[in-house]
Amino acid sequence: MLKDADQDFVDQLRAVLPERAIRTPEARHLEEPRGQWTGQAAAVVAPGSVDEVSAVLRACNDAKIGVVPYGGGTGLVGGQVAGEGPLPILLSLERMAAIRAVHPEENVIEVEAGAILQDVHTAAEAVDRLYPLSIASKGSARIGGLLGTNAGGVNVLRYGNARDLCLGVEVVLADGRVWNGMSRLRKDNTGYDLRNLMIGSEGTLGVITAASLKLAPRPAGEGTALMVVDSPAAALSLLALARDRMGEGISAFEIMHRMGLEFLTEKLPDIRQPFDTPPEWFVLIDVGLAAGLDPAEALEALFADAFDRGLVSDGMIAQSETQRHEFWEVREQIPEANRRVGSISSHDISLPMGAVATFIEQGGAALARLGDFRINCFGHLGDGNLHYNVFPPKGRDKSEFHNLRDDIKTCVHDLVDAMGGSVSAEHGIGRLKVGDLERYGHPVKLEVMRGIKALLDPNGILNPGAVLRAGG
Amino acid sequence: MLKDADQDFVDQLRAVLPERAIRTPEARHLEEPRGQWTGQAAAVVAPGSVDEVSAVLRACNDAKIGVVPYGGGTGLVGGQVAGEGPLPILLSLERMAAIRAVHPEENVIEVEAGAILQDVHTAAEAVDRLYPLSIASKGSARIGGLLGTNAGGVNVLRYGNARDLCLGVEVVLADGRVWNGMSRLRKDNTGYDLRNLMIGSEGTLGVITAASLKLAPRPAGEGTALMVVDSPAAALSLLALARDRMGEGISAFEIMHRMGLEFLTEKLPDIRQPFDTPPEWFVLIDVGLAAGLDPAEALEALFADAFDRGLVSDGMIAQSETQRHEFWEVREQIPEANRRVGSISSHDISLPMGAVATFIEQGGAALARLGDFRINCFGHLGDGNLHYNVFPPKGRDKSEFHNLRDDIKTCVHDLVDAMGGSVSAEHGIGRLKVGDLERYGHPVKLEVMRGIKALLDPNGILNPGAVLRAGG
Repeated sequence: MLKDADQDFVDQLRAVLPERAIRTPEARHLEEPRGQWTGQAAAVVAPGSVDEVSAVLRACNDAKIGVVPYGGGTGLVGGQVAGEGPLPILLSLERMAAIRAVHPEENVIEVEAGAILQDVHTAAEAVDRLYPLSIASKGSARIGGLLGTNAGGVNVLRYGNARDLCLGVEVVLADGRVWNGMSRLRKDNTGYDLRNLMIGSEGTLGVITAASLKLAPRPAGEGTALMVVDSPAAALSLLALARDRMGEGISAFEIMHRMGLEFLTEKLPDIRQPFDTPPEWFVLIDVGLAAGLDPAEALEALFADAFDRGLVSDGMIAQSETQRHEFWEVREQIPEANRRVGSISSHDISLPMGAVATFIEQGGAALARLGDFRINCFGHLGDGNLHYNVFPPKGRDKSEFHNLRDDIKTCVHDLVDAMGGSVSAEHGIGRLKVGDLERYGHPVKLEVMRGIKALLDPNGILNPGAVLRAGG
Repeated sequence: MLKDADQDFVDQLRAVLPERAIRTPEARHLEEPRGQWTGQAAAVVAPGSVDEVSAVLRACNDAKIGVVPYGGGTGLVGGQVAGEGPLPILLSLERMAAIRAVHPEENVIEVEAGAILQDVHTAAEAVDRLYPLSIASKGSARIGGLLGTNAGGVNVLRYGNARDLCLGVEVVLADGRVWNGMSRLRKDNTGYDLRNLMIGSEGTLGVITAASLKLAPRPAGEGTALMVVDSPAAALSLLALARDRMGEGISAFEIMHRMGLEFLTEKLPDIRQPFDTPPEWFVLIDVGLAAGLDPAEALEALFADAFDRGLVSDGMIAQSETQRHEFWEVREQIPEANRRVGSISSHDISLPMGAVATFIEQGGAALARLGDFRINCFGHLGDGNLHYNVFPPKGRDKSEFHNLRDDIKTCVHDLVDAMGGSVSAEHGIGRLKVGDLERYGHPVKLEVMRGIKALLDPNGILNPGAVLRAGG
């Protein structure tokens, strides 16, 4: 059973850490982007080295004090905010933000877990390389959190998610032991894959303090297009055609619905919209091609081929970097417009590619039986990952539909599960989806997960209540 | 403590399995390709379904009988042959070889663990797709073993290893519990990554009975070149240049040394050799490019650019599929020539890319201090993975050098470890490298591995003595 982190315990930490490592929690440490939870913490502890992280965890483990690992605070499932249970400390990696080394000839960068994603992008670009992981909150999200949640984003189709882009990690276990797994190797078959066990465990099995990450060569030429499709099924055929023609050259393939454009018009009217008449469905295609291929020409040829096959009816190809940016702005501002409209329930789901179109059809029909909603469905179609968000009808507020929220969620998630999909494609379980994991997770998987948790964190100090029920 | 599988126990299995599932071990079940070990088994048990696998493991777990999971028998580190300890049974997946489903529109194939790699290739090609994992023993290696050892091969540079190409697994645990993790999803962040824990665990944590695998679109055009380089360092610069020009279009980048050609001349004189005068170092580059690019032209342009930079001095580009096959034949027959010459010690190592050239230099110098050897160094340079094999001087036999074998191995592995490399890049630990893992593995990693093994296989029945010392 965990205990409250009282003043005595915080003083005990002060004795082993430098003065600047112990801070009073600020509002930002106890909030989360969607405003659904408020956290609590006796102190923000910000160690400056792996040894200090080790000392903190050892002390917490001995005293049975909960530890909430904290990166940029941008998580969308409450993994970074513990609002109930015994008072924990918040372990912020913000003072461990160094780029340790860049190896352009190896396409590897070594960073501390507190490094901000944008800074990793910048460091990679400085040596003409790309760290391909990219999400909307890149200006504040930190590498430790991105690995902890196995973050996804817009380039997974081509480059994989945070897991796929990581070669090695340094991890502090609950009892303070340090595992140095900072490999720069592309291949290493020496024993069980602890790296991937830590990645995606949301700080419940250990605290990642550093990582070596894969970089990619920058494509010789890049281009972006918007194309209007008849249906999600046509969008999937267009994706297959695009990949047949350009292989791995397709960096992103994002689907959007007219609802997203309407929300932009309503809430963010300054965003320049590309269509005179908003289409029902359209996709953004981003390509990065090898030398010898012109991205705009390749996209034009793709459009012509797709038009002949009846897959697309309209489209535009960015003629400049400014226009590429405008096209992307539409996609990237939709989450902000959603936030301002206010969803009743938001879902980060994935489906087998072959089930995506059917899901969109059946999901809309099932929700219509529950009430009159607006659905904004958009996301990373190339990964089968949809952000499927349900809003009140125009002129109504989400607060009026609070009583329907659980029904909506169950309706969507049951359908996803029945189709072999996932109720958390890229955001993780956090505290929001602990019940979903219990409901939809395979029972044997849950048993093994609980066993591993008990093995690595027998006192349950690490991120209590996240992923698995505390004390479960 | 495990017990011998006696006749009573085999009879007990007969009672719960169909007649054809219980077989007498044949020679092939107890040998391994390099002839270093001979195995033992009370019976070969070949279940026909996941339920039968479950029944076998439950019985073995209850009776504390060791189980050696067996795929195609092609492993190079003895993971499939238990030569000592209490008499085990051998669990062969050969009767579970079905292709369960092919989803070309999703680029996914679902197969049973006993499916032979070549048959998976054929099934993928039938729907104009590629299952990119490819190794020399593809005609007999089975998917379960390839996943169990996280196999690599010639296309890892572009497509990743067995781990990267797997979306989901079905696994039977030591006590017979079945985890159905047969996902077809590209993104799924619901809990700990048990899939990757099972992959590469060499049958010591569970038995993989089925898997869903990623397929890739077939490149529009393919081409192959051989280029002569001055040194391994020049080869690495050539790789970087090639990737800058063609991005992911580089499917394979293999380095070979003159020694390989000499061994071919000596032992396989029918293999057509490409060079009139064998160069010291050369590379094989295989490309698969998008529509609109001509592979031969792209390789010519790469050669011209590399020649101007002083990276290559000679080269040839395959002008036909026959010639592509001839180029590949040189690479693929080197292991067979090695086998016929007879190595004193063979090493499957990987290094950070930036350390590869230095290792080759220092490794040769260090071995020269031990004696007069022939070194055949070749392999997957694009992954930093070298097969570094040490042979007696011409006219002498490996048996004369038996007493130097451990010194050679230690000399090579110590240097690899000091440079941040791995002593098993793609073959795994098996029984051959248990001591190496103890010597070079991080102690905390080993502690966690032992904890996970005890958690998932408390009686130690699964592949006893592989990866971790039995009873350790």
